[in-house]
Amino acid sequence: MSSFVVALDVGGTSMKGGLVTRSGEIVRTDRRATPRDRGPAAVIATIRSFIDDLAAAGGGPPEGVGLAVPGLVTAEAALYSANIGWRDVPATDLVPLDVPVMLGHDVRTGGLAESVLGAGRELSDFLFLPIGTGIAGATILQGEPYGGSAGWGGEIGHIPVFPEGEPCACGQIGCLETYASASAVARRYSTRAAASSPAAPGSPVAASVTASAAASVTAERVAALTVSGDPLATEIWGEAVEALSLALASYTLLLDPSAIVLGGGLAEAGTVLSAPLAERLQKRLAFRQAPPLRQAALGMSAGMLGAALLGWRAAGFADAGTTWSLDVLKSPRVA
Amino acid sequence: MSSFVVALDVGGTSMKGGLVTRSGEIVRTDRRATPRDRGPAAVIATIRSFIDDLAAAGGGPPEGVGLAVPGLVTAEAALYSANIGWRDVPATDLVPLDVPVMLGHDVRTGGLAESVLGAGRELSDFLFLPIGTGIAGATILQGEPYGGSAGWGGEIGHIPVFPEGEPCACGQIGCLETYASASAVARRYSTRAAASSPAAPGSPVAASVTASAAASVTAERVAALTVSGDPLATEIWGEAVEALSLALASYTLLLDPSAIVLGGGLAEAGTVLSAPLAERLQKRLAFRQAPPLRQAALGMSAGMLGAALLGWRAAGFADAGTTWSLDVLKSPRVA
Repeated sequence: MSSFVVALDVGGTSMKGGLVTRSGEIVRTDRRATPRDRGPAAVIATIRSFIDDLAAAGGGPPEGVGLAVPGLVTAEAALYSANIGWRDVPATDLVPLDVPVMLGHDVRTGGLAESVLGAGRELSDFLFLPIGTGIAGATILQGEPYGGSAGWGGEIGHIPVFPEGEPCACGQIGCLETYASASAVARRYSTRAAASSPAAPGSPVAASVTASAAASVTAERVAALTVSGDPLATEIWGEAVEALSLALASYTLLLDPSAIVLGGGLAEAGTVLSAPLAERLQKRLAFRQAPPLRQAALGMSAGMLGAALLGWRAAGFADAGTTWSLDVLKSPRVA
Repeated sequence: MSSFVVALDVGGTSMKGGLVTRSGEIVRTDRRATPRDRGPAAVIATIRSFIDDLAAAGGGPPEGVGLAVPGLVTAEAALYSANIGWRDVPATDLVPLDVPVMLGHDVRTGGLAESVLGAGRELSDFLFLPIGTGIAGATILQGEPYGGSAGWGGEIGHIPVFPEGEPCACGQIGCLETYASASAVARRYSTRAAASSPAAPGSPVAASVTASAAASVTAERVAALTVSGDPLATEIWGEAVEALSLALASYTLLLDPSAIVLGGGLAEAGTVLSAPLAERLQKRLAFRQAPPLRQAALGMSAGMLGAALLGWRAAGFADAGTTWSLDVLKSPRVA
């Protein structure tokens, strides 16, 4: 086959891998569990064998390897991740092959992919905001992700939107994430549904969802219940939207992005999120227009595709992706 | 005399002008009122004659002219200012001389001066936050001010720190500026002091400040009263500090600055501001260290000095300022 890079998106739960050619063809995708509970050495060993297996499947050594990893990261090393538990892991420890390697921060690497290949293709300065189990953003400036003076930027999920609000797992008060992540929406709905049923039979919630069903609710379900007019879902969803509008108002006033690209599970709810969010964001911005909201284009593949761009950059092709066909968006997504 | 540039910092109330040599010597400073109430044409005419007079005082044509102006601005034109009322004024309309000209945004030009010459001299990525009648910030990235995708960034004074809080003059709710600008501190103190005296003779405020004295209080006075233990001043000052800590927590989480450089009148209050602010900012940041707070170095001259840097850049010296002696900080400040 033609020359390729190995691309790996290392998440806390699973790793998404792929082989991507110079012209952007995704010739293979695969996924493995991240053995986080067995410690950082096991995660590193899994990364190494996954890369080896992908390279073998490609039929020869890759031109380069790109990896998206969580935490604090430089192009040459994974410096720290509370999630995975590693410290100061050089790229050469992660990659068992003697080929050029480039690392990137997971969310910012997804943002790079949206910038070069996805919803930000013709944008210069924007926010990429994936909303999933947690919330972190990638600030894209002149087409490239910006991580701050030391790489700790983008923590929009922990800005204090309600300063007297609910405690967040991070130890702070009223963080965006504790109201608006997919898991927060599910958790807050379940907690309140359980509290109001069956002890409070007059509650409108008790009529639609029992406490036991509520315990296993998903954010997707809360979105659907909101559309169908369920009062508790409408309230919880509304609070998530309000929290997002406050955080995005702050971001907009500080950084004047040309657009906000929403990704992750919650964004896939579509207009039940984007319509009220656009309205409330504009309400919070009295003297300027709100930037347009866009849906991310690359879905769960953003991190892997960004890692492919890093792999090609490591191999010496700084312009990787710019000539790739938009058909890349129609390529098979990571399963 | 040696070659020089004309530097002008155009504010809503007054204009600060200066002549600055290639080596950073400030050979002359001057100030004129901004005739804002007579409309934009009068302001433009005043700018032109001020530049003419400064150039004549320098004994010949300057090498370049730099101007710091409010609103939306490019290097070549003042596009819009609600404050002054102009639209699409090309630099050549502002400068009556046939010399190179460069314009900059007022706050960001002050930030450029702090970056190149002042408190940010050895910093790369930081926030310059002057706190005066209003609050706006300059995001400095890799030593240069960043204004957003279209130049509307830096509006940290209007991020919603208390989403259910007090209305701001801008039309939004709970903006930082409406709690923490110098004028807000003075206004909030006066309003509450008047409300509690003399109708409420038991109030501790009534004992220290009469309603009529409170009506003309300044932020400086509220700071002094806070130091002396006045309960109302302590409360108002504390709310300003809390609002600032929330805004700076959001900024830090988003942009991970290496430092926050506080300027403007309120920062000159010194440790009565910086000590509780550093403490509250750290309290709002559970999982990361707060960036250090620094006092700005250039005071009210920052805008004029930044304009001088722009003037020298216009004249072809992109590295202007980098070799200037730190003695520039001991130069006479704009009166």
